[in-house]
Formats: sequence, C-alpha cells, structure tokens
Amino acid sequence: MHFMLPGQQHPHARAVSEAIERAREGVASMAGCEPFELVFTGGGTEANNLAILGTAAEAIERDPGGGKHLLVSALEHDSVLNAARSLTRHGWDVEVVLPGEDGVVDADRFADRIHVATRLVCLQLANPVLGTLQPVREVADLCHQRGVRIHCDATQAFGKMPVDVSQLRVDTASICGHKFYGPKGSGAVYVRRGLALSPIGFGESREMGLRPGSENVPAWIGFGAASTMVGRCAEEASTKLESLRERLIDRLRSAISAPVHVLCEQSLRLANTIALEMPIESSRIQRAARQLVFATAQSGAPPDEFTRAARAIGRSEAQIGRTLSVSLGWTTSQDEIDQAADLLAEAVETG
Amino acid sequence: MHFMLPGQQHPHARAVSEAIERAREGVASMAGCEPFELVFTGGGTEANNLAILGTAAEAIERDPGGGKHLLVSALEHDSVLNAARSLTRHGWDVEVVLPGEDGVVDADRFADRIHVATRLVCLQLANPVLGTLQPVREVADLCHQRGVRIHCDATQAFGKMPVDVSQLRVDTASICGHKFYGPKGSGAVYVRRGLALSPIGFGESREMGLRPGSENVPAWIGFGAASTMVGRCAEEASTKLESLRERLIDRLRSAISAPVHVLCEQSLRLANTIALEMPIESSRIQRAARQLVFATAQSGAPPDEFTRAARAIGRSEAQIGRTLSVSLGWTTSQDEIDQAADLLAEAVETG
Repeated sequence: MHFMLPGQQHPHARAVSEAIERAREGVASMAGCEPFELVFTGGGTEANNLAILGTAAEAIERDPGGGKHLLVSALEHDSVLNAARSLTRHGWDVEVVLPGEDGVVDADRFADRIHVATRLVCLQLANPVLGTLQPVREVADLCHQRGVRIHCDATQAFGKMPVDVSQLRVDTASICGHKFYGPKGSGAVYVRRGLALSPIGFGESREMGLRPGSENVPAWIGFGAASTMVGRCAEEASTKLESLRERLIDRLRSAISAPVHVLCEQSLRLANTIALEMPIESSRIQRAARQLVFATAQSGAPPDEFTRAARAIGRSEAQIGRTLSVSLGWTTSQDEIDQAADLLAEAVETG
Repeated sequence: MHFMLPGQQHPHARAVSEAIERAREGVASMAGCEPFELVFTGGGTEANNLAILGTAAEAIERDPGGGKHLLVSALEHDSVLNAARSLTRHGWDVEVVLPGEDGVVDADRFADRIHVATRLVCLQLANPVLGTLQPVREVADLCHQRGVRIHCDATQAFGKMPVDVSQLRVDTASICGHKFYGPKGSGAVYVRRGLALSPIGFGESREMGLRPGSENVPAWIGFGAASTMVGRCAEEASTKLESLRERLIDRLRSAISAPVHVLCEQSLRLANTIALEMPIESSRIQRAARQLVFATAQSGAPPDEFTRAARAIGRSEAQIGRTLSVSLGWTTSQDEIDQAADLLAEAVETG
C-alpha cells in the first residue's frame, strides 16, 4: 500500500500521507520544533544546500539591492562551505571565520565581522572530527540583534546529545537521518515558523513548495522511526558514550608510554567523538590495526574535512599526520573499547 | 557491511564501492550507455534539474556573453518545465513548443524556433498521460546540426519499452528508478561522454563532482537490480502490455454504447498508457469505481500535468473533465483488465 505517493488521488494514498506526517511528527519531536517547520530532503548535504542557497535566493528576491555578505565558520562541512562559496559567482562575499585552538568559534569572532551587508551566518552545532560544540545560541542571539539570519548544520549532533532547535534560536537547521541510524537518503531542513525560503530545485510542488520530486516514502518513514528512538534515548546514549570515551582515553594513556593528546580536550564536545594525536603516524597505526575503523587526514587538494579542522585549530602538518578521529556508536560495548585500546596501543608500540 | 560509504578508507568500504559500480553497470546496460556516462541522483526530478540547470550554468561559464534561449516542449514534466522557467530569473528566454493534436511535437516545430541564441532543447521520450512517443532522435540530429544541446526526460519510457540513449543521440537524459520497480530515491542523469556539465548542489566531491552527498547505497543498488531486470525484459513486457491495452479498449468499446475515444490513438505510444475520453465525467466514474486507480485532471492553478497535456493537444475543458489516464503494470493480468473494463463500463452506465 505504501507503494503509492501521498499526493495521489486514491484512498490508499491517504495512508501513505498519514505515515509521512507521523514521521514528520517523530522528527519534530526529536528536534524540538513543530512538524510544519520541517521540510524533508534526501539527506544532510541537500538540507544544507537548500537552507543556504534558499536563504540567499530569498534575500535577493526580497531586496535585490541588499548586501551580499555571508559568514561561515572554518569548521563547516563541505556542503556548507561549498554551497556558500558557490554564491561568489553571483557576487556574494563569503568570509570564513576561524575557531580558536580550543576548536570553538567564539561569538565575538562573528560579532567583529557582521556588518551592514551581512545576510547570513553559518555555524555548525558540533564538529564531526574534533567533536567540539559551538556557541550556536549565543551567535543566534547576536545575529538576530543585528538583523542577520543564522543557519545551523546540526547533522552531527543528533543521536549523540539532546538537540532542541527552537532553543538554539536558529532560523534554519539541517538534520541527516543516516547520522543516527536512520536510512540513507533521508534528511530535513528545519525552517523556523514564518521564515521565507526560496526553493533551489524545481518540479511539482511538494514539501511546502520547497522540495520537489516524489516523496521518498520508505526513507522518510524510517527517518521518523529513527528520530522517535533518538528523541527518547539521546540523553542516555550521551551519558553512556561519554563514559566509554573516557575509558578509551584512560586505557590508551595507561598503555602507551608517550603522550596521547586529545584535541580540544578542555572544550565541550560530543560524547562519541575523539580526535587523538598519537606518538606515531596514523597511517602506520592503520596498517597495524586493520580491524579498527577510524578516520585520518587524507592528503589531497582541496583538503578534506579532517585536515581542514585540524589546520583551523593550528595543528602542524606533522601533528595532523599523527592524528586519528574515533567515533563510538550506540552499540559500542565496553569490551570493544578495551579491545580498541589494546589494538591501538599495540600498533603504537610495534607500528 | 553495506552500511559504510564507498569513499571511506576501510577495506569494507571497497565492497560498497564495488556494489555501486555493479549497479551502475546494470543501469548502463539497460540504458544503452557506458557506466561512466551515468551520474546517480535521488530521482527523476533531481536528474532533470541537474541536466537542465547544469547545462545552463556550464553554457554561461563557458561563454558568458552567449545566447540564453531555451526550447521546451509543452508536454514536459513539471521538473523540466519549472527548472527551465527558473532560468528566466537569470535572463533566459524560455520558449514552449506545442504538440500537434496527435500528441507529438514534430521536429519541424523545433527547427522553426531554434536560432543563434538557442543553447538547449528539452524533449521527453514518452508522455506519462497520453503515452505518445516523441521524435527525440530526429530532434537530436537537428539540434546537433545547429550546435544546440538536447536533454531528454526519458523517465516515463524505461520499463515500458527498450530505450537506448546512445541511439537517441541526446546529450543528457533522465532515468528514474521508481518508475520501473526500483526503489524510491533512485535516479540518474546520462551525460554523454565528453560533455561538460556544472553541478547544481555543493559539498564533497561525489559522482564525478556532479552530485554531492552521501551515496544512497541501498537505493542505488536496488536501482541497478531493477535496471538489470528491465534490460532483460522490456521488450517482452512491452508486447504483453500492448495486447492488454488493446483488450481493455476493445472490451470498453463493446460494453459501452456511447463512443470511447482514445487520445492520440493513431500515434506511436507507450504500450502501458491510455488516455480515455469517456461519455461521462471522470469524477463520476471515480466515485462509481473506487477499486480502480487511475489519473484524472485536477482542477488547480498551475494546471497539473494531465490538464496541461490534454489542453496542449486541443481538448476542451469539458472533454478533459471526461478523460482518465490508465497505466498498466508488469503484473497486470488479463483477468484484471477484464474486471477493470467491467467496472468502467458499469460506472459509465450507472454513474
């Protein structure tokens, strides 16, 4: 029955439409907003593109002679940075705001750079490499005092901590289903009640006119189910993940004689993400501990997210080459943490 | 294992990457192109947007002072028409080319309108309401003689007839997985070898830099599987569907005393699609035959695809109100056809 599309004329289609609206309620409940404030998308990248390019298009339609200045933190995902940069073709001035060594972009850094032409600020909620949390609410208040919109890429935070987008006071926010056990191909943009946004894709009018194309019924229903689970369990998961994270760090520091540096250790961070600067190169650790899946910097131009984040907080290329980023999941067990610590320590001693 | 993303660094990710490339081979084999000529997308609407807006963006980047004239048939899907129309904001002149009463847009109609500023022609392969096939190859040859690109929305044809995009000689073509039993959220743009296209979404470089965002691994693998099936069975399915279609028409004409008019009956049409002009209003038929799922014109502004297609071939509003569009599927049986004919005939006699 769910093979049909919700907008079709047959009674069976109503069941599909109702299932999608229940899914939207599940996501809204997790995210702390109203269902009608959510536009479903095909994922986080599309959500960031729609929020940023849709805000820019709307701003220019509303006030064609208005300013075209946009601030974006250096820690943003490529889908935020590159969507922002694509606007330079249309005359926008895109300014990148660096974090401190603590991996946090202080509100002051935005305050110093917002000026009369600024239309939009982009600041993520949590960094996927460093795990650092950003002062989104503080920057949002600042933006609203100065008449500037703020978009928050919150994709990395859901499932790892409770998130309430209304409390963050942002104008738009991105959510990505597969970041918290939902299906690939699912995501949403939170669009604050009453806020105007222009579509960036064109077709039949779906999702309040902001996202054309046939509804991805199974992905969105799964997205709703995952969100309902996360809404119930994010706090508990966060506590468990934090204790596993600390256990991993403690065990590594006991087992390895040389210093193990946790990047941004004094900053507020996601409970599940650790960037570790090890005594030897991460490529050697990777060769010696193939059972483990972790991220390392990839040499390349343009630099990847990992390299960008580490450079932005002032790590040298040598330090970056010794750094790895570990993520823990809801199913990660204490035994697995202990095994991972042993494998990493062994790799360092023998690698 | 397929939870990972193909671009990740772990060996498990290679299996995912290989599965996606096998899927791409399945789609390429069905569509008559090379795997590297396919960019996977989230569906047909996204494919049409990428092909049209990506062609327009590339044209302007390559030759900023060049012409901005675009021809689009009146029978196109909203995702083609509205993507084209969105370009008027950027100074494009979008001209709509009407079909004849036979539901076909003759090549002459394009030949008369292509001029020095024309950059792109959009012509679908098959119309989803009327079923009519368009002279895509003839128009493609014409376009290439005149140095104009051609995009073909082929989404409606796959699964209903053999399609070979190389033989059609188009520059870009759209494919949509859920139109032929593939998963929702799957689609592709065929981009002819060597052709430049600009991305319309921004993020990490995926799908040859043309489609950012995490690969929708399960949807694309399913898309490949459905394509492999369609590649093998489209010809056989077409023959079966055509005989069922003719059976439905014959039975309706025997059972109903008043004339039953098949729109564009003398034109080459999809084997599975029939637009029937009935003796009574389609809304009355719908009320009397709720078991049947068919399309009717929906009053509304802007007009829906059904209304647009019927108006474009010169049907009056009264005639449109008596018209319904029936699609047959691969699983439709002769018994179901007979039941449908009985239900429709009864609805006409009593409705």
